[in-house]
Amino acid sequence: MAGTDREQTLLTDGPAIILVEPQLGENIGMVARAMANFGLSELRLVNPRDGWPSEKARATASRADHVIDNVAVFGDLASAIADLSFVFATTARQRDNFKPVRGPVDAGRALRSRFLAGQKTGILFGRERFGLFNEEVGLADEIVTFPVNPAFASLNIAQAVLLMAYEWMKSGMESEIATPFSGPDVVPAEKEHLIGLLTHLEAALSARGYFRPAPKKPKMVDNLRAVLTRPGFTEAEIKVLRGVVASLDYFSPKEPRGSGYPDRKAEADRAGGTGRGEHE
Amino acid sequence: MAGTDREQTLLTDGPAIILVEPQLGENIGMVARAMANFGLSELRLVNPRDGWPSEKARATASRADHVIDNVAVFGDLASAIADLSFVFATTARQRDNFKPVRGPVDAGRALRSRFLAGQKTGILFGRERFGLFNEEVGLADEIVTFPVNPAFASLNIAQAVLLMAYEWMKSGMESEIATPFSGPDVVPAEKEHLIGLLTHLEAALSARGYFRPAPKKPKMVDNLRAVLTRPGFTEAEIKVLRGVVASLDYFSPKEPRGSGYPDRKAEADRAGGTGRGEHE
Repeated sequence: MAGTDREQTLLTDGPAIILVEPQLGENIGMVARAMANFGLSELRLVNPRDGWPSEKARATASRADHVIDNVAVFGDLASAIADLSFVFATTARQRDNFKPVRGPVDAGRALRSRFLAGQKTGILFGRERFGLFNEEVGLADEIVTFPVNPAFASLNIAQAVLLMAYEWMKSGMESEIATPFSGPDVVPAEKEHLIGLLTHLEAALSARGYFRPAPKKPKMVDNLRAVLTRPGFTEAEIKVLRGVVASLDYFSPKEPRGSGYPDRKAEADRAGGTGRGEHE
Repeated sequence: MAGTDREQTLLTDGPAIILVEPQLGENIGMVARAMANFGLSELRLVNPRDGWPSEKARATASRADHVIDNVAVFGDLASAIADLSFVFATTARQRDNFKPVRGPVDAGRALRSRFLAGQKTGILFGRERFGLFNEEVGLADEIVTFPVNPAFASLNIAQAVLLMAYEWMKSGMESEIATPFSGPDVVPAEKEHLIGLLTHLEAALSARGYFRPAPKKPKMVDNLRAVLTRPGFTEAEIKVLRGVVASLDYFSPKEPRGSGYPDRKAEADRAGGTGRGEHE
C-alpha cells in the first residue's frame, strides 16, 4: 500500500497519543507507523517496560522516524497529560463512573472541534494485556470504545491507535467519502454516441444474418439495445466499444484480412465510425 | 483491549477478504485477527509465498481460529473470485482505467447494500511490497483507497484489512455513533437540586466569612453560581457534591472532629442536606 509522496507537506498536528506502560517495542513502532499514516506525530510513553529508546520500535515504525525521534517518556500518567485540556481514554469494557462514552467517529469529530478551537488534546491507550486501570480512566474526560465483534474483541494497541488516527484524519476531510484521487467522471454519454454504437453494431450483425428469423428482429434489436443501454456507458467507453465492433466487423471470417478493406471501412464510416458523423 | 464475550453469537457474514500473493505468515495472521474483530471470517489466499497452512499465521491470529481454519487457497486470482458478484480492489495509487474510486466509508456501505441484496462480494489486497498489478485491479469492479497522509502513506496489509473490516462493521450499525456500551445518561438535574447545592454551599461559606467585604457578596455569589451552573451537573453528581460540602462543613478547622456534631448536622439539614428538603 506504499504511496508516499515526499513532496507533500507532512501532516503533524492533532491529538497526542499516550501509551500507558507499553510492553513491546514492536507495538510502539507499529503505533508510530499507524499515527504517521493518518497525520499524527506526538507520541508519549508512560513507563515503557523495556525502556526508551528502542531499536525494535524504530525497526517496526517503517520510517516514521519523525514520530520515533520525538517520543516523550514520562514517569506517571498525570505528568504525561499535564499540558492537555481534554483527554479520551480508550477501553473495551464498561466502567462504573461518570464518563460519557463515544464511538470512534464521534470521538474523532470531538477532537477535531477542540483542535480547531486551539485546545491541546490526547488519547490514552492501556497496556497490551489488560488496558487501563480505573484510576487511569478516571484522569480522562471521556471514554472511547470500538464497535467490535462482541464474540471476538481482540484489538491490539496498534490497531486501536490506527482506528483513532484514521477517524482523526477523516474528521478533517471536507467530506467523509472524499478520496485522495478519483476515477474518471462516469457521465453517461449523450445519446447520439450510444445510438451511433447501436446503429453500427446492428448494421454489422445484419450483414451476417444475425437477426433471424426476420419476424423476431424487432424483439432482438430491442433486447440488444436494452443490454447496451443499462450500463450508462460514457463517451470514452463507447469509443472503446465502437473500436471493438469495427474490428470484429473488419476481420470477419468470411473476408480474410486484407480483402475488401476500403469498402468495409467506408461502410463502417457510413454507420457512424467516427462516433459523431452519423448525426452531424 | 480484550473484551471477548463467548456468550455472544460470532459474527461471520460479509465480504470475502482476498490476499494476492501474501509473503509473511505473520501478516496473514494479523489479517485474520483484524477480520475477526469486525465480524468477517472468509479469508482467501492466492499463491501465499510460504505455502499454507502456516503456524506463524495461526500464532499471530490471536485465537481467530475460525478464520484460519477456513482459509481457502487458490492458484490464481480469477479462481479466487469466481463465485463473487462484486469485487473491490484496494490500492494506494491512481490507476489509469475505468474504475470508480471510493473511500472506505462509502465502500463499506456499498458492500452492505449488496450483502443485504444477497450478493456475494470480496475485497482484494495486494502484495506487501507493491500491491496489485494493473491486470489484477482490472478484474475488480471498483477501487477502494484510504485517506492517508500524502507524505507518509505506508499502511500495511493488515492495517488496510482492519480499516475495511471496521467500515464493514460500521455499515451495519443502526447509527455510526452507536457504542457497545454507554456511560450514564447525562441529564442535567432539575434546578431544585442545583439550587439546594448552592444554598447549602453559600450557607457554609457565609458561616466562615467567605463573602467579604460585604458589598462584594452579590457579585461573589453570582460568580459561584455561574461556575457551578455551567457544567450542567446531573442529580447523581449533585449528590456527590452535596456530600463533599457537608463533609467540609463538618470537619471545619475551627471545630475539630467530634465537637458540636449534632448542631452542624442540623444546620446542614436546614440548608437542604437531603437534596430536596428545602423546597418541599
